[in-house]
Amino acid sequence: MIKVVLLGTGNVARYFFDNLREKDHIKVIQVVGRNVSALDYFNDSKAVTTDFNAIKPADVYILAIKDDAIAKVSHTLSLQNGLLVHTSGSVAMNVLPNTIRRGVLYPLQTFSKTPPFYTANIPFCIEADEENDLDLLKKLALSLSDTVHKVSSHQRLHLHLAAVFANNFTNHMYHLAYKICEDNAIPFTILESLIKETSHKIETSTPFEAQTGPAKRGDTAIIEKHLELLPHTKIKEIYSLLSQSIKDTYGDEL
Amino acid sequence: MIKVVLLGTGNVARYFFDNLREKDHIKVIQVVGRNVSALDYFNDSKAVTTDFNAIKPADVYILAIKDDAIAKVSHTLSLQNGLLVHTSGSVAMNVLPNTIRRGVLYPLQTFSKTPPFYTANIPFCIEADEENDLDLLKKLALSLSDTVHKVSSHQRLHLHLAAVFANNFTNHMYHLAYKICEDNAIPFTILESLIKETSHKIETSTPFEAQTGPAKRGDTAIIEKHLELLPHTKIKEIYSLLSQSIKDTYGDEL
Repeated sequence: MIKVVLLGTGNVARYFFDNLREKDHIKVIQVVGRNVSALDYFNDSKAVTTDFNAIKPADVYILAIKDDAIAKVSHTLSLQNGLLVHTSGSVAMNVLPNTIRRGVLYPLQTFSKTPPFYTANIPFCIEADEENDLDLLKKLALSLSDTVHKVSSHQRLHLHLAAVFANNFTNHMYHLAYKICEDNAIPFTILESLIKETSHKIETSTPFEAQTGPAKRGDTAIIEKHLELLPHTKIKEIYSLLSQSIKDTYGDEL
Repeated sequence: MIKVVLLGTGNVARYFFDNLREKDHIKVIQVVGRNVSALDYFNDSKAVTTDFNAIKPADVYILAIKDDAIAKVSHTLSLQNGLLVHTSGSVAMNVLPNTIRRGVLYPLQTFSKTPPFYTANIPFCIEADEENDLDLLKKLALSLSDTVHKVSSHQRLHLHLAAVFANNFTNHMYHLAYKICEDNAIPFTILESLIKETSHKIETSTPFEAQTGPAKRGDTAIIEKHLELLPHTKIKEIYSLLSQSIKDTYGDEL
């Protein structure tokens, strides 16, 4: 039995709570958070507290709080035993106090109030100083997912950066497409199939191989036409910069 | 029975050929292309020709050739009857000769040598001068897909522009993420689940609602850190411009 204390009440804490509680060999024994109303969500665990000095002894303490609070909050905790892990992509493991066993349990997924579609195969990135702790984190991660990677703080930082491109910037591309549709009385849903196709292609091709479109083809006439159609300087700038970047990527082939 | 002649031998022509041939009430009676070896693919239709003056009489002539060749090639054809349509997102219907019934049958999907995953629900955008011809195109499109939209040349041009953002630029984001992973010995496959999640979220949220990440949160510390990690000026520029665009999008909320 792995006893877990969750520290935090946001979307990531909710994800761990909802998914760990069903497991036989894992028990979430306590949820700790500053915000009383946010703790409501976890109430049926019958062990919620706002007191960071009343943390129960556990095997793993999962600190699922905002990135910029991890260093500070972790140094105020008085934990005797167990492994303290944070869940952030961009925070190094060594910001956690070195007076206690420490590690990282980073689920590489975008979390919002609604649960993710792809819950079963969220890749987990784990890190710890000791082999035993890596084993413990692996066991915990494998109870939630099929995919666990040992990733260093340095790699994780770059992975988080890659995820900004793959998720945040991609979603912003959808948003810009949405605005173009909206401005021209076209339902955005018409793009759904294309968007899914684009995301599924990476299963069978590299993005380098999958690239299509006017910039890839070097079709200057269409690029010029599109720039004329775009209403604002900012979005024209984005179109130009990304088209140029695609052209540069395939520069030697054209 | 709708008799179809396909003009062109590229990926879009292949798509129509492969998917129309199985239908009971539609028959591809001929494939016309300049390139003898490209016609090989269509050989078992037993009616391929390189002679654009030997086109058989048909109900619909589907001109699936490069955008910049549509105007020129369509004016060299001597068709007596039937409906001539092109399949391009960015070419107006009226570049086709007005001496014949004309229209557009635009499948909104990215086509490459490998067939699309999402074949059954490719949205078709149709356009024609006459109501009868719209009905004919609708019938043809519905044999291939559940989703048919009547879209004007003006709308289609904007839709194609939106598709550049939703598909071409999105795929380039994947490519930039791929490079970051590659440079840091991280397998790109680790991002697959996140990428699919991002694309599926638009089924239940608008992209505006689904946005997450440092730019959305106004997390300047992480943005600065990421800019330091990026190796080249060009990619830094993309990161900055897109982060700024996201900040602008949520400007009033922060």
